[in-house]
Amino acid sequence: MTEPQANPSPSSEDAARDERHKARMVRKKDVVDAKIAAAQDERGVIVITTGNGKGKSSSGFGMVVRALGHGMQAGVVQFIKGAFPSGEEMFLRRFPEQCAFHVMGEGYTWETQDRARDVAKAQAAWEVARGLLRDPAIGLVLLDELNIALKLHYLDVDTVIEDLRARPPMQHVVITGRGAPPALIEAADTVTDMTPVKHAFQQGIKAQRGVEM
Amino acid sequence: MTEPQANPSPSSEDAARDERHKARMVRKKDVVDAKIAAAQDERGVIVITTGNGKGKSSSGFGMVVRALGHGMQAGVVQFIKGAFPSGEEMFLRRFPEQCAFHVMGEGYTWETQDRARDVAKAQAAWEVARGLLRDPAIGLVLLDELNIALKLHYLDVDTVIEDLRARPPMQHVVITGRGAPPALIEAADTVTDMTPVKHAFQQGIKAQRGVEM
Repeated sequence: MTEPQANPSPSSEDAARDERHKARMVRKKDVVDAKIAAAQDERGVIVITTGNGKGKSSSGFGMVVRALGHGMQAGVVQFIKGAFPSGEEMFLRRFPEQCAFHVMGEGYTWETQDRARDVAKAQAAWEVARGLLRDPAIGLVLLDELNIALKLHYLDVDTVIEDLRARPPMQHVVITGRGAPPALIEAADTVTDMTPVKHAFQQGIKAQRGVEM
Repeated sequence: MTEPQANPSPSSEDAARDERHKARMVRKKDVVDAKIAAAQDERGVIVITTGNGKGKSSSGFGMVVRALGHGMQAGVVQFIKGAFPSGEEMFLRRFPEQCAFHVMGEGYTWETQDRARDVAKAQAAWEVARGLLRDPAIGLVLLDELNIALKLHYLDVDTVIEDLRARPPMQHVVITGRGAPPALIEAADTVTDMTPVKHAFQQGIKAQRGVEM
C-alpha cells in the first residue's frame, strides 16, 4: 500500500508549476465570477435527465434530498412501478410530512403487455402530478420516468407542458427517463443526456440492492 | 386545461395497435428476461458518473439514499468543499448512525489558487476514504468529486485503484466528477458520461437552492 505521491518534495520545477497553476486559476476565477454575476434570474427550473445511461432517476432523487436538506417540501410521482419498493421509496417514506411519495403506473410495459391499462394508469399518475404542480407549498417535484410514458404516447406532451408552465413560479421540476420528447426538451431549462460508457449488467453482474434498485 | 387524450376511444385501429404493441412487448420481455437470467454475479461494483453535464453528484447522492433505504450503512467523502453546506449534507447529517459524512478539501481550485495546499487537503481526504474502503460494515461509499482531484494530479490514480481493489468484496463505490481518468474507467463496472444538452445557467438563471446546491 503506497502513499499518494502527487507532490513529493518542493523543487524549482514544482514552484514554477505552482505559479503557472496559480496564474491559470486566477484567470479561471475571473471568468467564473463574471458568469455568476451575469446569472441573476431566480425562478423555478425544469430539469430533465434522459438518455440510455445509468443515473437518471438517482440524480432526480439526489435533487429531492438537496431540497429536503434546505427545508423545502418535495413531491415524487413514479410513473413506472417496480416489482418491489425501491430503496429511495423506503427511505423517503420515512418523512411523510416533508415529502409526498406516489408510486403510480404498472411495471415496465413489456411486463404488463396491456396498452389500454398502461394508458389509464399513466393518466391517473398525471392527475396526481398535476395536484403537486398546482401546490405552491411544494418546492420541488420529481416526475420519475415520465419521459417513458410520453415516449409511449400514454400521455399527451402538450397537456404535460401546459400544466408545467402553469405551475407556481418558484417551483422546480425534475423529469427523468429515456427518450424525452423534443417539445419537452425545448420547454426545459437544464437537460442532461446520460450516455452509457459501460454497464456492470453487460458483464454478467446482477442488479443489486443500493445500486440498481 | 385539457385532459390527456392518448387513447380517447376504442376502435379497430386502436385494437390493431394494441395487438402490435402486445406482440412487441412479449418479444421484448423474452430478451430482457434472458439478460436478467444471464446476469447472476453478485459483488460490490464501482460506478462512475463523469462528463460536463449536470447530475453527477446528485446521482451519487441518490444511490446513497437507495442504500440507506435498504438499511445499509453508507459513507460519503466530498473532495471539493463548497462555501456553504449543500442540501445533501444538511439532510444526510440527520442520520449519523447510518451515514458517515466527511466534507474535506477546499473550495474549487480557482478559488484557492494554492496548489500545495490543495494537494495536502486531497491527500487527507483520501486517508478518510481509505478508512471507509477498509470497513466491511459500509455497504456503499460515495467519493464525490474524486475525479477532479485525480484530474488535477492531487492524488495518484494507481494508489486510488489499488485501495479500491482491496475493499470488501460486497462494498459498492460511487465516484463522481468531471474528467475521470482512463485507468479509473477501466477499473470501474458502470460508467456514465453526463452530457450537457442545455443548462439554465447559460440562460442567465442563478444557481438555486434544492437544484444546484
